[in-house]
Amino acid sequence: MKVYLDNNATTMIDPEALELMLPFLGEKFGNPNSLHSYGSQTHPALRKALDQLYTGINAADNDDIVITGCATESNNWVLKGIYFDKILKGDKKRIVTTTVEHPAIGATCAFLESLGVEITKVDVNNQGVITADDLRNVMSDDVALVSVMWANNETGMIFPIKELSSVAHEFGALFHTDAVQAIGKIPVDVQDANVDFLSFSGHKFHAPKGVGALYIKNSMPLTSLLHGGEHMGGRRSGTLNVAGIVAMGQALENANKFLAFEQSHVGRLRNKLEDALLSLPDITVVGDRANRVPNTILASIKGVEGEAMLWDLNQAGIAASTGSACASEDLESNPIMEAIGADSELAHTALRLSLSRFNTEEEIDYTIEKIKHAVHRLRSISSSYAYAPKWHKSGL
Amino acid sequence: MKVYLDNNATTMIDPEALELMLPFLGEKFGNPNSLHSYGSQTHPALRKALDQLYTGINAADNDDIVITGCATESNNWVLKGIYFDKILKGDKKRIVTTTVEHPAIGATCAFLESLGVEITKVDVNNQGVITADDLRNVMSDDVALVSVMWANNETGMIFPIKELSSVAHEFGALFHTDAVQAIGKIPVDVQDANVDFLSFSGHKFHAPKGVGALYIKNSMPLTSLLHGGEHMGGRRSGTLNVAGIVAMGQALENANKFLAFEQSHVGRLRNKLEDALLSLPDITVVGDRANRVPNTILASIKGVEGEAMLWDLNQAGIAASTGSACASEDLESNPIMEAIGADSELAHTALRLSLSRFNTEEEIDYTIEKIKHAVHRLRSISSSYAYAPKWHKSGL
Repeated sequence: MKVYLDNNATTMIDPEALELMLPFLGEKFGNPNSLHSYGSQTHPALRKALDQLYTGINAADNDDIVITGCATESNNWVLKGIYFDKILKGDKKRIVTTTVEHPAIGATCAFLESLGVEITKVDVNNQGVITADDLRNVMSDDVALVSVMWANNETGMIFPIKELSSVAHEFGALFHTDAVQAIGKIPVDVQDANVDFLSFSGHKFHAPKGVGALYIKNSMPLTSLLHGGEHMGGRRSGTLNVAGIVAMGQALENANKFLAFEQSHVGRLRNKLEDALLSLPDITVVGDRANRVPNTILASIKGVEGEAMLWDLNQAGIAASTGSACASEDLESNPIMEAIGADSELAHTALRLSLSRFNTEEEIDYTIEKIKHAVHRLRSISSSYAYAPKWHKSGL
Repeated sequence: MKVYLDNNATTMIDPEALELMLPFLGEKFGNPNSLHSYGSQTHPALRKALDQLYTGINAADNDDIVITGCATESNNWVLKGIYFDKILKGDKKRIVTTTVEHPAIGATCAFLESLGVEITKVDVNNQGVITADDLRNVMSDDVALVSVMWANNETGMIFPIKELSSVAHEFGALFHTDAVQAIGKIPVDVQDANVDFLSFSGHKFHAPKGVGALYIKNSMPLTSLLHGGEHMGGRRSGTLNVAGIVAMGQALENANKFLAFEQSHVGRLRNKLEDALLSLPDITVVGDRANRVPNTILASIKGVEGEAMLWDLNQAGIAASTGSACASEDLESNPIMEAIGADSELAHTALRLSLSRFNTEEEIDYTIEKIKHAVHRLRSISSSYAYAPKWHKSGL
């Protein structure tokens, strides 16, 4: 059996989205900017896809959704755009973010820091998130932008975006959220949350790789990251990836259609898997379920090196992860692991399991069996783990 | 009959490239950075594709080809990277380019100019290109980068890249070329031309939209445009568009396989079409054929408004263009048109026909017939064109 439980890294393409995109890889290959019928025949599908994206995040009429190549581009765009508009040519000097953002935010902030921008990183609490008060404590009117992820890629923990954006606005700062791991898993409503910018990536919700977007409230001005032709109203140049956009629109519509199912079916399977893990000794899971996206488990399995576990699971046809596929290989300093007060061993024993609506109960039952087997096998050969009943360990 | 003659705007996907990419939109959807088999099963195809790209432009072992989302991204990256590395933090102050670059260069230069960079734009001659002497005349040791396109998107005219890079290097400047319109049409050899950076885009040589690359000689350092995860050795972050990369590799290999055919078959069809155009009165074509990519014609048809011609051709199933699909709608100030000494009417009467190896003789014969018909019809209703034999016009 093949079981894919690494949906926070990437997802299979929604079959309906794939079917819709294929003609645009075939006979409907025209450039949408062309004046002939090869160009214009792409327009209805593009318009439909953009409408699907608008509806999908509840954007208002005067907002903008600009297609990008990926969320990394969207994140770089908003941070660097704010740098040019509000810091280099404005009167602000700081960007506030958290210690657990995706590298597309973290590395971009490091770059901006090298240009003289003050970066303030708010520590997460033992649930791996920050609160409105945590943010308020570091705010002042010199902050140009607050950037906080909607849900964490490793833990699945959900940040209080509506409250955070409200605090940012109190201090006259703009608010950006990297919603890559939230879209398709929980409701994302840009008007309700009142965010100014929101990044997302198609391939995290069953669209193909190579297409993402940046939501821009009220179409506000933002210095481009990709200057060039008149594509996307001149905001983001580059020939439109028609097939990718069409697929992303449909994938978002479908993901939202299945949001309740995500909570009920995916959430139930995730809980079943998590309960099975927690029934074993010396396993912890990061963060309360109630505040987590329904598909994610980040567990620490004492005595079981993460990569060894991946290998055993992979042999059984199960795809999992030790954490972010984008992170560097040095997991020791993982700030989430540190923030929840775990000992230094935890980072090496992390196992991330991330489900999707395409997983079945049978797959989860199979996975539970294989994980139990692997935990037993790997602990039995571990030099660091004393494999004995808990009551016995206390005497060691 | 449907005839696609707008291949400088975008191209149909090579059927073999499409077939190769489809599994990566289906069951082989893994993230290449993942440690399990869904990730690793993408690696052989990615390695093969990168090898095909290396071979395709004759890159050396210690060079680098970094995948991007499009050539616009590649162009922005090299210009802005040079700004940060050599101008903001270095001792150079100028970027030298031409008046006829793609907007991805032109608009990026305008942005850098707003940051204080001195931009020098060399005028093209009546052939629509610049010579080594034209470049030498504006060079000094304060130039960080020279950026000149390999072939022009509207005229198809080929720039003397090897000579130009040599001049740039004489003055201690780096040399970049936007080779979007050259790849797959003429031989492109980065070692022979001795360029430092080269941009290209898959969808101009029968790969899908949404994938491009930047060639970087000797893997030299260049500040990233997309900061983030460890993808592409940390040079360009963002989850790899596996399907697009696989297709681009095969498309480049196939395009190069057909280079001789491009010259013989496509060049012959282009010449036949061009000869037919020139056999009509008051039609001019920009630039000598000998120095043009084999697939392109930019013609001016006196008395025939470009968009009217497009409309007539489109009605006949023929896709053409009035110029770049990326340019703004204001064609009056088209610098190529001005540079070749055309009167102001020319910009409005431009017709670009760009062929590919997938065009047939039958299609070209059909196009000749339809163009002749359209020229006759549109001139007969033109208020500006006195439709009469040439000998008669002289008496008007």
